[in-house]
Amino acid sequence: MTSPVDSIARAAANAFATWSRVSGKRKGELLRAIAARLEADGEEIVRTANEETSLGVPRLQGELSRTCNQLRMFAALVEEGSWVDARIDHAKVDIRSMRRPIGPVAVFGASNFPLAFSVPGGDTASVLAAGCTVIVKAHPAHPRTSARTGKAIAEAVPKGVFGLVEGFDAGIELVRHPQIRAVAFTGSRRGGRALMDAVAARPEPIPLFAEMGSINPVFILPRALQTRGAEIAAGLHASVTLGVGQFCTNPGLIVADKAPEFVEELAKKMAATPCAPMLTPSIADAYRSGIERLATLASRRALVSGGAALFTADARTFLEHETLMEEVFGPSTVVVECDSQERMLEVARALEGQLTATIHADEGDDCAELLRVLERKVGRVVFNGYPTGVEVVPSMVHGGPYPATSDGRSTSVGTRAIERFTRLVAWQNTPDTLLPDELKESNPLGIRRMVDGK
Amino acid sequence: MTSPVDSIARAAANAFATWSRVSGKRKGELLRAIAARLEADGEEIVRTANEETSLGVPRLQGELSRTCNQLRMFAALVEEGSWVDARIDHAKVDIRSMRRPIGPVAVFGASNFPLAFSVPGGDTASVLAAGCTVIVKAHPAHPRTSARTGKAIAEAVPKGVFGLVEGFDAGIELVRHPQIRAVAFTGSRRGGRALMDAVAARPEPIPLFAEMGSINPVFILPRALQTRGAEIAAGLHASVTLGVGQFCTNPGLIVADKAPEFVEELAKKMAATPCAPMLTPSIADAYRSGIERLATLASRRALVSGGAALFTADARTFLEHETLMEEVFGPSTVVVECDSQERMLEVARALEGQLTATIHADEGDDCAELLRVLERKVGRVVFNGYPTGVEVVPSMVHGGPYPATSDGRSTSVGTRAIERFTRLVAWQNTPDTLLPDELKESNPLGIRRMVDGK
Repeated sequence: MTSPVDSIARAAANAFATWSRVSGKRKGELLRAIAARLEADGEEIVRTANEETSLGVPRLQGELSRTCNQLRMFAALVEEGSWVDARIDHAKVDIRSMRRPIGPVAVFGASNFPLAFSVPGGDTASVLAAGCTVIVKAHPAHPRTSARTGKAIAEAVPKGVFGLVEGFDAGIELVRHPQIRAVAFTGSRRGGRALMDAVAARPEPIPLFAEMGSINPVFILPRALQTRGAEIAAGLHASVTLGVGQFCTNPGLIVADKAPEFVEELAKKMAATPCAPMLTPSIADAYRSGIERLATLASRRALVSGGAALFTADARTFLEHETLMEEVFGPSTVVVECDSQERMLEVARALEGQLTATIHADEGDDCAELLRVLERKVGRVVFNGYPTGVEVVPSMVHGGPYPATSDGRSTSVGTRAIERFTRLVAWQNTPDTLLPDELKESNPLGIRRMVDGK
Repeated sequence: MTSPVDSIARAAANAFATWSRVSGKRKGELLRAIAARLEADGEEIVRTANEETSLGVPRLQGELSRTCNQLRMFAALVEEGSWVDARIDHAKVDIRSMRRPIGPVAVFGASNFPLAFSVPGGDTASVLAAGCTVIVKAHPAHPRTSARTGKAIAEAVPKGVFGLVEGFDAGIELVRHPQIRAVAFTGSRRGGRALMDAVAARPEPIPLFAEMGSINPVFILPRALQTRGAEIAAGLHASVTLGVGQFCTNPGLIVADKAPEFVEELAKKMAATPCAPMLTPSIADAYRSGIERLATLASRRALVSGGAALFTADARTFLEHETLMEEVFGPSTVVVECDSQERMLEVARALEGQLTATIHADEGDDCAELLRVLERKVGRVVFNGYPTGVEVVPSMVHGGPYPATSDGRSTSVGTRAIERFTRLVAWQNTPDTLLPDELKESNPLGIRRMVDGK
């Protein structure tokens, strides 16, 4: 075993011994240093990312700033320090426990956010904040952006704390490597399943957090449709076509009463959408096949050649064809027309796990039961809004039951994302000098702790 | 699909719709009602358990009281309500999130704690407290105790909230059932691995928390050995033979300098241990084979026919034979004699994941590096004590890296055990009346919440 991946994994394991014991204050400094360096190199990074992804300079500038905010959010979290859930019980024996970093983590960057969900993205930020070392497997859709941002991170942190590998085989070798203790992935269901299988075949299992996308259903209730149909059509059009539809929270399914005017309005807007290049030729190919697949089962209402597409299907057709529940990554959506609210509930009950579900409801719409059904299927319920746009705040949940993710208990956005890369450790009757600062009797860090159950 | 398991699983899924929305106050009442009923039926329960397990009335009375305390600890936790980790951000959009119950859970009771880790045990208590419904697969070692305690629970909670099944095939059917959303197990590594494989083969993966035991190494540093050798030998003897050695935290490995006096002292005590019946004939058979396996590699220093056993081996032999790292469930332990502290560290580094590790160290012993090594291998580090005896307090961690458990991030004892059966859900821009009470703007439950990051 002397492959490049093996060397990088061993270096990450060596660096972990030190990095896992660095203070929150120091981790915060280094996360802020990464953000500062990304900003300093911002112009070049955005230019490179735009050359590779065609996402446009304004969007990429926004993404860079989101990425840096994310790094600083985790910096603030670890500087404050209470996130470790420190607990002390002066019981018959003295027991103290807290979250500790799990070990070196492999992160698989996504194609559609070359900054915020790729090399310098939320997974990398939360792994480093947890006290783990990280090896990112760069996405082939933006290799130069990955190398450029990877260089910025590597220069800001101690040797071995950050590593970067390229290529499918290197990714698989990484996931199988005995020194790797957890895996985070954002991408397709096929890619996520392949990693789930690779992890399950390890002699020693490790946690895998794969975010595999979903169709993010939008339910429009009768009164909302009547009073705000045109407005909702405009909002949905914007959400479906944002970033050429290349978002994991893209609304690929709209469920409503039969409403020809609403469909017409939406179709008009979709048909008028200018065509834009997708992230990679293979994503564009997959999108074209997806559209063809939908066209065999649903009625085509609008199609821009190589661009935005709108379909309709009745509820029975939708319920009979699982294919209509599969994500088509791109600016396409299917309106499922229902003849009753009971039918709408049936569609909701038939759905697989989703990252999000949206309800449009106005005064007089009864959505209590629908909300109860959807709450069990999703990571986030949106009211009278649109699923695209994931706020980076402590309360955010970007996750959801399988197959939206491989492990529906966690989130990959928001401060709780750090918990994925930790495990609980307890110390019993341990001399104060040997305890982590977080658990010392005098609370030298001044963090929030639970002492004797309070 | 009309098997008895299928009916019970469907009933659990139906009951979940209501139970998952019951208030913390009501859940607390019912958990307390279960405890009260177990106590009311205590005499009969303890008698039945003693007939089936031979563990003795005093131990079983203690276990019943521990079980009832556990139920009341979770009652208090959900009555207070802050455990849900409610967060509210009044951001560009309004985001609120909290832990929600995951769904019906299958629990596999252990043989060695017919009450505290079986039908009315910690897993059942934490599953119900989380708002999940539970189906327990009874352990064949104490079927009447399982039925008796199961009846007490079933009579205290609404129909479908608790179910009980028997038999290996029923257990496998349960784990494969589409309505089951998580599995908790306490038992052997073979049993745990079988469930891991069954869960991995499901079309839809679900979390599995298998606690599979470990050898719980005890490291005795030179000064401690010199000054307290006899005392430590007495403490270890008590810990190794407690409950006929049938504890998952039983110390099966002792690592120390070569110290003939200490070994002699321990051997004398082990040889004088009265023989007691084990839980089942098959556990006794497995213990006998385990002893024979150890005898082929290590030197036998004491052996009571069918009872307590002591072996010694030098560090090199230990490091060369993985068999010596395998758990022998029963009152047996192996002393690994080291010729230097570096050798002791080598033994520590070679260990697999463990529930616990213990360090005996006195003034002048340097255990900093040993502690760092062990901390990465275990769920709980014990200083100058013995690993048996798991305090039921909020800070307790009863878990540890694989193969001690299937998922080393969590604990099956202490209040954090409830988190295993939950997942995060967020609500965006949701009308106050449709939000769970925990997230309503006015905080009607008066729980601790994080609002706007504070």
